[in-house]
Amino acid sequence: MTYELYYWGGLPGRGEFARLALEEAGADYTDSAQGGGGDMMRLWDGPGIDTPSFAPPFLRHGKVLIGQTANILLYLGERLRLAPRAEVPKLWVHQIQLTIMDLVDEVHDTHHPVGGDFYYEDQKPEAARRSAMFRKSRIPRFLEWFETILARNPKGDRHLVGARLSYADLSLFQAIAGLNYAFPKAMARELAKAPRASDLAMRIAERPRIKAYLESDRRQPFNEDGIFRHYPELDG
Amino acid sequence: MTYELYYWGGLPGRGEFARLALEEAGADYTDSAQGGGGDMMRLWDGPGIDTPSFAPPFLRHGKVLIGQTANILLYLGERLRLAPRAEVPKLWVHQIQLTIMDLVDEVHDTHHPVGGDFYYEDQKPEAARRSAMFRKSRIPRFLEWFETILARNPKGDRHLVGARLSYADLSLFQAIAGLNYAFPKAMARELAKAPRASDLAMRIAERPRIKAYLESDRRQPFNEDGIFRHYPELDG
Repeated sequence: MTYELYYWGGLPGRGEFARLALEEAGADYTDSAQGGGGDMMRLWDGPGIDTPSFAPPFLRHGKVLIGQTANILLYLGERLRLAPRAEVPKLWVHQIQLTIMDLVDEVHDTHHPVGGDFYYEDQKPEAARRSAMFRKSRIPRFLEWFETILARNPKGDRHLVGARLSYADLSLFQAIAGLNYAFPKAMARELAKAPRASDLAMRIAERPRIKAYLESDRRQPFNEDGIFRHYPELDG
Repeated sequence: MTYELYYWGGLPGRGEFARLALEEAGADYTDSAQGGGGDMMRLWDGPGIDTPSFAPPFLRHGKVLIGQTANILLYLGERLRLAPRAEVPKLWVHQIQLTIMDLVDEVHDTHHPVGGDFYYEDQKPEAARRSAMFRKSRIPRFLEWFETILARNPKGDRHLVGARLSYADLSLFQAIAGLNYAFPKAMARELAKAPRASDLAMRIAERPRIKAYLESDRRQPFNEDGIFRHYPELDG
C-alpha cells in the first residue's frame, strides 16, 4: 500500500524527516510537494476528516491518517525496518526524534522569535539576540547530547540506538545538514567538538539510497522560506 | 512496580502532564518534586546512564528510563488504561498530546521569546509583542482545533478520542487550566467560543481522583517560575 506524504512544497521543513525514512527504505510513496497524492487541504482538516492534523506534515496510508512528524516516524519505523520492534528501544528512538523536533522548533525561533505572524524583516533585532544565545548555548548543548548518546551506546558509536540504522540517525543527519546551512560559522566550530555525531551524519549522506536521493531533484534545497535559513547576520 | 517521576520541584511544568495520568489511575508512584525516588541528577544523565534524557521530566519504571513528556505518556497510556490498545487510535491520542506539547512550548515563548538564558525582565518588550500575537492568533487556533476534534469524534464530544477517558483529555484540562492562569482576560473571551473543550476541562476537574489531587498539597500551583506565568501586562 502506497504511503502518501503531505507537506508544503518549496522547502524541506519538517516533511523532510519523513521523506528521508521513506527514501532510505525504498518505500513506495507519493509526495504532495512533488504533486503526488490527493487534495492536501481537504485531507488536512476538510469535512469528514475525523482526525485532522494541527499542521502538515501528515501521512495517509490506506485508511490511516497520521500527523506530527515524530508520530509519523513512529508509525513508519517498524514498517520500514528503521526502528526496533521491542517497546523500550522503540521508545528510545522516538525520544531522540522528539528531542530533534524540539531542536527544529528552536531553530525556527532563531529567525522568528516574536512569532510566525511577522516577517523576519520585522523582527531582526530580536532574531539576532535569540540566535546569539542559540549559537552559544543551544547548539553546543544539543550536539553534546548526541555525542553522549553515541559514546554510551552499548552497541558502539556508529548508530544512535543499537547496532542498526534507525530513523533517528537519518534525522540527526538532516538536523546537522540544516544547522550547517543556517549557521556555517558556528557549526564549523561546534561540530569539531562532536566527532561522533559529525561522522554519523557523513556516513548517512553516503548511504546509496540517501546519496541518490540527495542528488535527485526530489531533494528540495534549504532556503529562506524554510525552517533552516541562512541569514549571515545571525551566524558568527 | 512503582513508577518514579523525576521533575523540578516548585512548578507544575511539563511534569504535571505525567502526574495527572498517574493520579487519575491511582498509580503507585513517587515524585522527585515531593522528595521521592532516587538521585534525579544522576539518573538524568550521570555516568552509566545509557539513555540520558535531554531534560526532565523523565520516568523510571524498573530498569526502564524514559524521557520526553509525550513519550512518558505513550508508555504509561496502556499500562494505566488511559489510552486505547489498538495502534491507530493509540497514535491519535499521542498526536493530540504532541500538539498540546507544541502549545506548551509556545506558551513558554510568550514570556521568553528571546530564549531561556535571559530573564523575563530582560525581554519584556519582545514578550509583549509575542504574547499579543499568541492571544490573537494562536490561542484561537489551538482551541478551535480541540473543538473540531471533539465535534468530529464519532463516539461523541465527551472525550477527545473514542468513548473513554484518555490521557489527552487530562492534558487538555491542564493546558486550559494553565492558559486560564496566564491569560485570564484572553481566555474568558476565547473559551466562550470553545464550549466543548471548556466543558471537557470542567468535567475532568470534577473526576473524583483528579478533584482530590487538585485539593491536595501534591498539586503545585502555577507560578512565575513555571511555563504558564501570569504577567498582567502580557494578557489583554
